[in-house]
Amino acid sequence: MREVFQQELAEVQERLVEIATLVAESIDNATRAFNEVNVALAEQVIEDDDKIDAAAAELDELAINILARQQPVARDLRIVVSALRISASLERMGDMAEHIAQLSRYRFPDKVVPKSLRPTFVEMGAVDVAIARKLVELLRTEDVALAEEIRNDDDKVDALHLSVFDKVLGETWKGEAIDTVDATLASRYHERFADHAVSIAKKVQYLATGDWVPADD
Amino acid sequence: MREVFQQELAEVQERLVEIATLVAESIDNATRAFNEVNVALAEQVIEDDDKIDAAAAELDELAINILARQQPVARDLRIVVSALRISASLERMGDMAEHIAQLSRYRFPDKVVPKSLRPTFVEMGAVDVAIARKLVELLRTEDVALAEEIRNDDDKVDALHLSVFDKVLGETWKGEAIDTVDATLASRYHERFADHAVSIAKKVQYLATGDWVPADD
Repeated sequence: MREVFQQELAEVQERLVEIATLVAESIDNATRAFNEVNVALAEQVIEDDDKIDAAAAELDELAINILARQQPVARDLRIVVSALRISASLERMGDMAEHIAQLSRYRFPDKVVPKSLRPTFVEMGAVDVAIARKLVELLRTEDVALAEEIRNDDDKVDALHLSVFDKVLGETWKGEAIDTVDATLASRYHERFADHAVSIAKKVQYLATGDWVPADD
Repeated sequence: MREVFQQELAEVQERLVEIATLVAESIDNATRAFNEVNVALAEQVIEDDDKIDAAAAELDELAINILARQQPVARDLRIVVSALRISASLERMGDMAEHIAQLSRYRFPDKVVPKSLRPTFVEMGAVDVAIARKLVELLRTEDVALAEEIRNDDDKVDALHLSVFDKVLGETWKGEAIDTVDATLASRYHERFADHAVSIAKKVQYLATGDWVPADD
């Protein structure tokens, strides 16, 4: 029984890595669509979000079946509950990538943000992509050093997010209202993407170290 | 054993009702703080969010303990898993109320949005408050007619959310960039608040009817 359970946990982990890999591809495509004005890539991201949703729902079914059949307790139980929460966060990360792609599609053939903000969004997108790739590795290897890196990267995203508002609210901002709206939403989506990654990283750290993390962190 | 389990489920339900009640108070206070420029009320909401987080974390612990001790299967298991998800959504609704309150505090003693948008936000806030109160009743009574009402109310919030963008992007908009940023964020927070309520309503409908709802809905 124990051996079957370990195999099933390995299957859960593998699926989380797969979903995280899809998310990493989506944020890479979404930020490229956003920064390079590529409507085909934006539509790809929007389509791919259904795959992420389906994969997350399948993983949830697997996790619930494991709970029912294996009746895990103590740490084993918390691992399975954590998997459900990680799946929910990955699903939301996919949504954020989709929202970024949608902004890019709405504005096509224009760029989403004015020139003065583009370097900021290129950087924020690059950090989000780096975070997503580290998350794949973290889920694969449970190397907690990566969790620490993700937290540091999130600090960078937060600083860039604030710098967007500094620019938009600064005296030199010449954007129209639509530029302000887009910059606000795009920045929020990039920031939330990173937040969800931090929340997952904390849970993986728990899996590795045994410290339980409440759901809202 | 079965009787104990039923008692524990009743306890879970009671706690969900309690958390939803806190959330309803918070959104009521947050929208009043927002619309009436009341910084004390805004600070109350920000403080109260810690209570909501703590109550949600306690409920999660209870649910996980029930899983460990009672080892529920089939529908019973799904009820407990649903409770964990409902708790996570309530916690996020509390965050949205807090974000709305924060916007109001940042802008104090000014109002957050210019005159032309105030009626829209008063209406959006009122619908969010109505949704939150219906959610309390839905969790208490499992009356699925309320789930339907919440979905209809969410459609109203979505329409108001779109109307904010119509105004902000319209030719008569005279707001500064900061007004545009605030209106965008405030509208997004109101809309997300309602989305989470719909997601909970779907799960309660499952509890009442037996149809399983994937986590991302």
